[in-house]
Amino acid sequence: MTRDKPAPYRTAQPDGSNPTAGNPISPDGVPQPGQDYLIPARQGRAMRLKRGQSLTIINPQGHQVCDFFAITEDSPAEFLSMEHCRTALGRITVKTGDRLVTNRRRALIEITEDSSPGVHDILIAACDHTRYQQLGCRDYHDNCADNFRMSLAAIGVTPLHVPCPFNIWMNVPVVQGGAFDWAAPVSKPDDYVVLQALEDCIAVMSACPQDMTSVNGVGTAPAELVFRIGR
Amino acid sequence: MTRDKPAPYRTAQPDGSNPTAGNPISPDGVPQPGQDYLIPARQGRAMRLKRGQSLTIINPQGHQVCDFFAITEDSPAEFLSMEHCRTALGRITVKTGDRLVTNRRRALIEITEDSSPGVHDILIAACDHTRYQQLGCRDYHDNCADNFRMSLAAIGVTPLHVPCPFNIWMNVPVVQGGAFDWAAPVSKPDDYVVLQALEDCIAVMSACPQDMTSVNGVGTAPAELVFRIGR
Repeated sequence: MTRDKPAPYRTAQPDGSNPTAGNPISPDGVPQPGQDYLIPARQGRAMRLKRGQSLTIINPQGHQVCDFFAITEDSPAEFLSMEHCRTALGRITVKTGDRLVTNRRRALIEITEDSSPGVHDILIAACDHTRYQQLGCRDYHDNCADNFRMSLAAIGVTPLHVPCPFNIWMNVPVVQGGAFDWAAPVSKPDDYVVLQALEDCIAVMSACPQDMTSVNGVGTAPAELVFRIGR
Repeated sequence: MTRDKPAPYRTAQPDGSNPTAGNPISPDGVPQPGQDYLIPARQGRAMRLKRGQSLTIINPQGHQVCDFFAITEDSPAEFLSMEHCRTALGRITVKTGDRLVTNRRRALIEITEDSSPGVHDILIAACDHTRYQQLGCRDYHDNCADNFRMSLAAIGVTPLHVPCPFNIWMNVPVVQGGAFDWAAPVSKPDDYVVLQALEDCIAVMSACPQDMTSVNGVGTAPAELVFRIGR
């Protein structure tokens, strides 16, 4: 019997493509303060955040998850790391005032404001091509791992790893015995989260295209997100 | 005010050293079937596992945690990934029969046997130099991230990332509201776990040197582990 061996893994290489690849917010990812930026449904965007700047992420439809990643400007090998956040926080959940840390345990992002009930996820990997194949897809399906790769490529950045994201508004309740559900967000239209950069970094946001589980709502389609620098 | 900027992060570079660096099980990490290998307290070892081979990890003192990592032979960028395991399992816990997957969602390691009560951790980052500094250490403290780096360097392998480990026997119970405790292992002397390789890989085991929390027992010192190929 022959076995299909996958090709060696090239971390920065997407498995397919969508308009994320050709639509950076600017050639170098530097945003205009005060301008609203749209992340169309199923796409991602990268932007450069300076230390001290705040980023507001808005959920116009209320049921849309934002996969959030951040890489330090100092070093592409240093990024926001959920397993290090859990240790730092002593929790598998986050709340306003938490300082999220990198894989070097440096505080990188502070959650300074949250208009939603505060249900977010720090446990689950970004969806990717293989995840949708395993859920039954035959064709390419937009996914957050590729949105991360394409968003960064669009501003000239090559990631060394696809980190576990901070899944804003994703509702994955852990129940007795450690099992969890893929539940719908409890956020409402126009809910927003404000994140402050504690170091210079590149933030990536993906409007999660998951439409084969309930993480982006029940009976709803993946929707857009909006972000801006400032509150 | 000047700010101390850390040097750019070099993933494979340890922050200090211990005898792990000079004591590979063999120059290329290939083990002798049937031979027992000692991992002295506070050290790590890397070994090559062929698809189908089983690895038995033994806990002579019963209270010692084993930080377990695995990198595929196909690609250093593909490794056992706890965030992808949680998605695959639908749980934040593991049990016998579970197939643990890589960051490409390939099944890599199966837990085929476990003599202990089955309390293990898949949530917490490997301890590292910074963790001990944050706990109050002033000097270098042995740590699992450096044991991972040194174990691999000792057999000529350069990692691209320090993944979140499968923390065998580590007891981090999650309680109401998502908080967790650093509790003592519930395993007993000579408990063992058998892991089968589902693909060729490089396994790294670190006898966790954590002695500033209770994860390696209360009133006990970090202890040795033993492993062998076969049951």
